[in-house]
Amino acid sequence: QGEAKSIEEILKEKGVITVEEYQEAVTQKPDVAYVPGKGFTAATADGKYKLHIGGYAQLLYKYTDVDSNAADDKSDFNIRRFKLQIAGNVVSKDFGYKFQGDMKNGFTTEDAFINYKFAAPLTVQVGQFKPAQARQELTSAAKQLFPERSLANDTFNLGRDLGVQAAGSFAGKIVEYRLGLFNGNGPNTANPDDRHMVTGRLDLNPLGAYAMDEAGWTSDKPLLNIGGSFAWNKIGGGDVGSGFSKDNDVMDVALNLDDAATAAAFTANYGSDLTWLLWTANVNAAWMGATLAGEYYALNADPSLGSDWDADGYYVQAGYQVIPQTLELAARYSAVESTDTQASAKFDKAETQFGVNYYFAKHAAKVQADYTLVSDDWNADKDDNIVRLQAQFYY
Amino acid sequence: QGEAKSIEEILKEKGVITVEEYQEAVTQKPDVAYVPGKGFTAATADGKYKLHIGGYAQLLYKYTDVDSNAADDKSDFNIRRFKLQIAGNVVSKDFGYKFQGDMKNGFTTEDAFINYKFAAPLTVQVGQFKPAQARQELTSAAKQLFPERSLANDTFNLGRDLGVQAAGSFAGKIVEYRLGLFNGNGPNTANPDDRHMVTGRLDLNPLGAYAMDEAGWTSDKPLLNIGGSFAWNKIGGGDVGSGFSKDNDVMDVALNLDDAATAAAFTANYGSDLTWLLWTANVNAAWMGATLAGEYYALNADPSLGSDWDADGYYVQAGYQVIPQTLELAARYSAVESTDTQASAKFDKAETQFGVNYYFAKHAAKVQADYTLVSDDWNADKDDNIVRLQAQFYY
Amino acid sequence: QGEAKSIEEILKEKGVITVEEYQEAVTQKPDVAYVPGKGFTAATADGKYKLHIGGYAQLLYKYTDVDSNAADDKSDFNIRRFKLQIAGNVVSKDFGYKFQGDMKNGFTTEDAFINYKFAAPLTVQVGQFKPAQARQELTSAAKQLFPERSLANDTFNLGRDLGVQAAGSFAGKIVEYRLGLFNGNGPNTANPDDRHMVTGRLDLNPLGAYAMDEAGWTSDKPLLNIGGSFAWNKIGGGDVGSGFSKDNDVMDVALNLDDAATAAAFTANYGSDLTWLLWTANVNAAWMGATLAGEYYALNADPSLGSDWDADGYYVQAGYQVIPQTLELAARYSAVESTDTQASAKFDKAETQFGVNYYFAKHAAKVQADYTLVSDDWNADKDDNIVRLQAQFYY
Repeated sequence: QGEAKSIEEILKEKGVITVEEYQEAVTQKPDVAYVPGKGFTAATADGKYKLHIGGYAQLLYKYTDVDSNAADDKSDFNIRRFKLQIAGNVVSKDFGYKFQGDMKNGFTTEDAFINYKFAAPLTVQVGQFKPAQARQELTSAAKQLFPERSLANDTFNLGRDLGVQAAGSFAGKIVEYRLGLFNGNGPNTANPDDRHMVTGRLDLNPLGAYAMDEAGWTSDKPLLNIGGSFAWNKIGGGDVGSGFSKDNDVMDVALNLDDAATAAAFTANYGSDLTWLLWTANVNAAWMGATLAGEYYALNADPSLGSDWDADGYYVQAGYQVIPQTLELAARYSAVESTDTQASAKFDKAETQFGVNYYFAKHAAKVQADYTLVSDDWNADKDDNIVRLQAQFYY
Repeated sequence: QGEAKSIEEILKEKGVITVEEYQEAVTQKPDVAYVPGKGFTAATADGKYKLHIGGYAQLLYKYTDVDSNAADDKSDFNIRRFKLQIAGNVVSKDFGYKFQGDMKNGFTTEDAFINYKFAAPLTVQVGQFKPAQARQELTSAAKQLFPERSLANDTFNLGRDLGVQAAGSFAGKIVEYRLGLFNGNGPNTANPDDRHMVTGRLDLNPLGAYAMDEAGWTSDKPLLNIGGSFAWNKIGGGDVGSGFSKDNDVMDVALNLDDAATAAAFTANYGSDLTWLLWTANVNAAWMGATLAGEYYALNADPSLGSDWDADGYYVQAGYQVIPQTLELAARYSAVESTDTQASAKFDKAETQFGVNYYFAKHAAKVQADYTLVSDDWNADKDDNIVRLQAQFYY
Repeated sequence: QGEAKSIEEILKEKGVITVEEYQEAVTQKPDVAYVPGKGFTAATADGKYKLHIGGYAQLLYKYTDVDSNAADDKSDFNIRRFKLQIAGNVVSKDFGYKFQGDMKNGFTTEDAFINYKFAAPLTVQVGQFKPAQARQELTSAAKQLFPERSLANDTFNLGRDLGVQAAGSFAGKIVEYRLGLFNGNGPNTANPDDRHMVTGRLDLNPLGAYAMDEAGWTSDKPLLNIGGSFAWNKIGGGDVGSGFSKDNDVMDVALNLDDAATAAAFTANYGSDLTWLLWTANVNAAWMGATLAGEYYALNADPSLGSDWDADGYYVQAGYQVIPQTLELAARYSAVESTDTQASAKFDKAETQFGVNYYFAKHAAKVQADYTLVSDDWNADKDDNIVRLQAQFYY
């Protein structure tokens, strides 16, 4: 709210009211405010109860030059995301909650969780949220270097799930961890059995706390993050159609475990169950407006019937803020592939991307543009060119 | 907001401003606040317009020990409820409105009504809301003694509908009534004809007003409620599939009137129409942290073709706050049955439940746990054991 | 908030604080308020960021006397509309945004756009909103003379779409224009190709700015609007089922281009593509509580296979506030028809309507009632009588 003084401060400095009276008057004032980028906030004077209502939106224009004579090129306006966020704390500052829904087309429930912070090394969180996985997936869609996450992330991400997680940090966030147990059947989906997905992640920030934000905000000290994650699940025919493969294209498409598949088809193809392990590793760095990030994704699927199946992917990306806090240039290369027999036809694809970001007020108001060259080596005639222009704001 | 004084009060007491100036300054202040358990409230200074935004959430973990070798046990995390509530008044304090939607998985419109209070004995309400029915169903899901309502209530409740209702109270709420006319086709559903559902309810509170809240908040005087309700409707083939049976399991399952049924099947089974009457009766009492409640449900369905069909159910429950406002123990027994030939295979089931509630801030923040033994006497091998743990908070 | 003085004003007038201190204290105050009819508003002190949350609701009762012995009459309670509106500006007062969803039954995303005002003659808007079309369609559903828009508008309107628009005004809004490019596939729908819908509208207000509001608020000067619009699109088989015909009953029903149609059926009937042009023209006037409006709609569809197809319609309506700002009487006649062979059976219908509006607080709280005589000349036995009663309020 700037440097201007409140009526209470002025009266205190003039001696009209005493310091004690000032304290009393300020305590009595309800804490209601609008903060750019954070939305509307209302809280009790003691801060033990707080309610925040806001969100962010992304409006996208996308032109796809389809590399095929049979198909039309596409020129498409799109409400890419329109998030409603409700967050705060109740009873105590340590007892937090968050809700997030996407209103871009109807209403999709995303985050809905509560957590209790026992101490810095231990916060327990219950509900629906993103399990430990790749750093890019865990970084908000509003804080990406490009208009969207990378091809590798979109191919291997798990999205959200329902469960419980312990997380925390040590030594001023030099070490961070997350360990969780989830239904393993995707967002907004009940668990049809008593098997759970287990996920974990470890982050090392040797140069100090490193927030999950891909933009190259000028920092006077260098930042480094080395992280890794794993997710493990054993699924059976009863899980098919439950939505566990919703965000993970590999399981959804390549392994044919999508919602349209049947339990019978699963059993015929893979036997009584299938164990999969997804792991990721990343290195992120930032200094003086420059950012560098690389992340590797590997999935192994081990069915009780038939042989193993492997797939992997990665991205490397770099950004530099030519005009600090204002103009940023970015480049990215991402590739996914699988040479295994069972589903090899599905994957041997890469994307090369060049982007420009213009920030009016950091992520609270920005425009992002990029060009993507898609190289689908398996389907040789599908080398599409895509141009995107996206406006984002927090309300 | 506690006992601290506002700047206006301080200046008045110091004589810096006069009483008249104090009045003026307070009138001018917009009434904007956050109240724990009630959410954010904004109002005009005269109180004639008011807007309240808030809601509550329930996050549930449920373990079901299925009494069958063929089926898996279930270990399930769940967003049980995540309500958005918008309420207030416009033009006058007597002209109220309320909206409630559930955002737990997508968005479901629940309450949407306006009402005008002519006087204590008469408030007219129009829109979508719960018609007069069992007291437990009318008691908010956030104010139950157990994590969920009873088996009997879940079997016989009507849920919400669209219509108009007159309600009011006499002699300081010693007598309360509701009388309404509804589409009779369930929530968010148009009436395909000009037949309506009629519902009514009478509550006697001989010891004084008794709010619909099942928890045993310590009160220094005993409370007693004796109530009863009825709902009557005549349905035809054209109503089938409209959703009128959505919440009522008896009509939905046992009478095979669910959304998947067809008008032709209805006519073949029941003739041109079917008249049903649902009535309930309850006794509730509370004193010194203890609560006692019993409610009976009876449904009679009278098709124009074939014989009548009866079903009934009940619950009895008791709770006691071992540590007032903090720790509560609870027990409940609920049973439903029908011995009629037409659908007898469906019903002869009971649930025995034991619960523990821990309140951080009454219903605004609590954790509820319970154990349920299901006894399905008709399907002898389905005596499941269920353990539930549910966290609730108002935001 | 009325004429009462704030504590800062009182202290300034008493000389307790200086004018400079007053300015400082007022600047520091967060701008948070509830304004009847506009909902809750929070803004930063400089006004560069603003968030408004509110909306309006319409609760409807409708009795339809169906002119057929085979069909039931209908008596129906309905949540007609329950809008959630989030609007404001970010970074600058010139950079606005708006979101509107309807929560009447689940959640439907309606408006979602941003715009930047370069100057009065040019505002560029991107996202989802109503393209330029008939004045009645562009006038909010909350500001209609009758409970609903006219038969002609419901038959020919385009509703919302995704795209970009330039709009502005000259000479104090004596001239207004809109020109836009849209996906042309309806709301919340991607463009399957690179063809776009083009729309435009010109408004002349020779007597000064004339807001889109059909009610006859007493103005001491006469108001006149003469306007026209066009919308043009070329669609192919690939567009069928995308939702572009959602709001336009002519294309949806008469041309059989609805979502259930197939690309193959399109090609068989109309060839490779179909070009359509919709244009409208209107005259609106208001003075001394009286309003008069007439609007004409014409659609021409030109398939690459087969002959052209024409349809048109219009409405004329008049209102008068017998008691200014309080009681309004209204009458309307609207007709639609097509004499062309291809789809002539669909259209030769008229509606005569008489209405009464009672305003408690302008559109912020009103009740509207009307009687409709439907004359379907093609289906001679379908002359229904409809009575509607609708309550509306802004929250």
